[in-house]
Amino acid sequence: MSTAGTPLRAAIIAVGSEMLTPTRVDTNSLTVTEVLNGLGIDVAFKAVAGDHRADLDALLGHAIARYDVVILTGGLGPTADDVTRDVVASHLGLPLLEDADVLARLEQRFAARGVRMPDVNRRQAMVPSGAAVLGNPNGTAPGLWIEHRGKAIALLPGPPREMKPMMAGEVRERLLPRSGHVRLLRRVIVIAGRTESRVEEITQPTYASWLGADPAIETTILATGRHIELHLSTRVMDPAAGARALDEAVAQIVALLGPDIVSCDGRGIEQVVGDALRQRGWRIACAESCTGGLVTSMLTDVAGSSEYVERSIIAYSNRAKVELLGVAESAIAQHGAVSEPVALAMAMGVRDGAGVDVGVGITGIAGPGGGSDARPVGTVCMAVAADRVHTRTFRFPGGRSTVKTFAAVTALDLVRRVLNDLSIETDWARRR
Amino acid sequence: MSTAGTPLRAAIIAVGSEMLTPTRVDTNSLTVTEVLNGLGIDVAFKAVAGDHRADLDALLGHAIARYDVVILTGGLGPTADDVTRDVVASHLGLPLLEDADVLARLEQRFAARGVRMPDVNRRQAMVPSGAAVLGNPNGTAPGLWIEHRGKAIALLPGPPREMKPMMAGEVRERLLPRSGHVRLLRRVIVIAGRTESRVEEITQPTYASWLGADPAIETTILATGRHIELHLSTRVMDPAAGARALDEAVAQIVALLGPDIVSCDGRGIEQVVGDALRQRGWRIACAESCTGGLVTSMLTDVAGSSEYVERSIIAYSNRAKVELLGVAESAIAQHGAVSEPVALAMAMGVRDGAGVDVGVGITGIAGPGGGSDARPVGTVCMAVAADRVHTRTFRFPGGRSTVKTFAAVTALDLVRRVLNDLSIETDWARRR
Repeated sequence: MSTAGTPLRAAIIAVGSEMLTPTRVDTNSLTVTEVLNGLGIDVAFKAVAGDHRADLDALLGHAIARYDVVILTGGLGPTADDVTRDVVASHLGLPLLEDADVLARLEQRFAARGVRMPDVNRRQAMVPSGAAVLGNPNGTAPGLWIEHRGKAIALLPGPPREMKPMMAGEVRERLLPRSGHVRLLRRVIVIAGRTESRVEEITQPTYASWLGADPAIETTILATGRHIELHLSTRVMDPAAGARALDEAVAQIVALLGPDIVSCDGRGIEQVVGDALRQRGWRIACAESCTGGLVTSMLTDVAGSSEYVERSIIAYSNRAKVELLGVAESAIAQHGAVSEPVALAMAMGVRDGAGVDVGVGITGIAGPGGGSDARPVGTVCMAVAADRVHTRTFRFPGGRSTVKTFAAVTALDLVRRVLNDLSIETDWARRR
Repeated sequence: MSTAGTPLRAAIIAVGSEMLTPTRVDTNSLTVTEVLNGLGIDVAFKAVAGDHRADLDALLGHAIARYDVVILTGGLGPTADDVTRDVVASHLGLPLLEDADVLARLEQRFAARGVRMPDVNRRQAMVPSGAAVLGNPNGTAPGLWIEHRGKAIALLPGPPREMKPMMAGEVRERLLPRSGHVRLLRRVIVIAGRTESRVEEITQPTYASWLGADPAIETTILATGRHIELHLSTRVMDPAAGARALDEAVAQIVALLGPDIVSCDGRGIEQVVGDALRQRGWRIACAESCTGGLVTSMLTDVAGSSEYVERSIIAYSNRAKVELLGVAESAIAQHGAVSEPVALAMAMGVRDGAGVDVGVGITGIAGPGGGSDARPVGTVCMAVAADRVHTRTFRFPGGRSTVKTFAAVTALDLVRRVLNDLSIETDWARRR
């Protein structure tokens, strides 16, 4: 920290009663945090308030007393429950004055759509005395920037497409001189085939040592539901030195986790598999049973995937496995539909039927029904048929949707390992 | 409100530095909110704090001063950055004492796994004087319940599978006597084929009138990215009267939106289509191009879907459309791969090939590439072939993943409308 001084600390307040219900979370704060962190400003506190004026007033007092920067999102609309502008102005003792420029722009905006501006929208032209107006090309509510006793306070509209450009543009620029040239750099390492606790066990002794280094590197482990991610970040005055330190740290993790590293630049497994296929000029086809199309849906989430995704067969019934993939009925009878021989026949069947380079076969028990002692829920057999063939049986934890997601990600990861000639041993392989 | 008195107001505080980064939000508060709302308790304030002791202490002071109930989640682990227990005890002036029962249970838990309890875990046996211990069958951190000057304060572990049963169980029971027999009842109406603003336009005059009724009904419109949802809620002393009022309100919405209502009990489109198929004893097969398997993946998210999902073909290439679905090459040449005749041939081809009752064909341009003036990005042609056939062309807004999701939901909604003999006109049909 010595190289970077004491970072500024920020509070983020989202205003909107809908974010206090059981169905909706505030996500604007993630964008705000990203911009603040990029300036080396820590987010120390986040809160959600409804449209209760006294509550917001008290919360604002709490935030302004403790933090250097306070960013509010939402509550700048034209209706009576849009309270942010009023509460901030009254809390700071600033009179609200109608701004002629803002009013003119509002009226123009409505005129351009051929309608008269409703009277309620006049409220959006009220500006606390001394505040700077932040332009909003994507909506009616302008943002506001207030400097008050050394603190910086920004009021931003709630809709993300209005808030984001304002935060990344004018608010960032106004914060820049305060941030003291401290920058926060970040790397994201994506990992597959290991549990979160195993990744921690392997990497913790290494990343713990970075905290005392100069520049210090902080590490966070995240389980995203698809991958495990390691986030490395450092706060520096000299971006080149920071980048060098992060490069070295990433190299240490790569050495520790080797074949389990999907990417060191945040790309997900579907993108990495797509890139590997495109690089080789190879095409892929999948035969999916328990994943129900999720593997192919993930592959085709990538723009341009039609270059390498030829077709897939979702063979949910045994009849479809036989008719469309050429799986022998005797193989199903002898080994069961959830077995490595059937997965392999599915992979080879779809590869050869499509005339492509890589075939994938997946058959398993997503649950909640269909499990047995020999093949409990979560058992999934997979095969990848390329120039050589590979089969594996996995046992995934969790409910139906967790098993489906784990199975789809693991199938793509198996393709990645086969394409790159890497070990296919992972934490998920079934213990027999 | 007069029937129900003044509801208690609650604050929720999530503790954990990872929720102050740009990648992770607090979702525990949604579960907590659901339980509190079920007791008629309003959530007035939510916040996230890191592991900074002075910050958490000040936040706690703010929350306890203003709200009747304060629920904290997270920060009860064994390590030094798990600060919740210490900060709450010191803020309230309660000495922390080692609890022999908690310690014994912790030691048993480790012994059962055949390991000695690490010394750090002793911290989890420290209990603020006068607090009640909340059992945690799913982890090492017990919860804590503290009554302090009329306020109720609960400390819950961060992992959702530990927090949820504790909140829905012991915390709910302890709050019950405070909640004054007020209950919050809720209904979720799921809507497809309409934009959020169109749903608002149609329903707003009706639901606005419910606010003045007795009991008053509050309405929220949510766009979930898949559906539009109307959430109706009422706060009552008499659950039977509340249920009658909600039934009547739901009936008014059904009369207004008719064929656009997917369900009045929160079931999503994939569940509703599955139920309709099962009821008729019908089976389905899909031929997907631009949705890349997402339609079938959604259908197979439903437990038991193997009863009615026979197979699907993801025909990403034209060759796959011809070889696997019997689409005439001349039809592709004449009308283009993205056309109603090709969608219809795909639907009939997969239906007849699978020998099922319903076939679905989807072909479109998800983008970002591949668009033209005649068929811009977002254009998707669909067909449903059942006892009769239906085709439609849609134009969806947004980027690749939005178009894919909208197309998949709309395809399932088209199946729902065809199965139930409903109008298939929606807001998304392409204006020619």
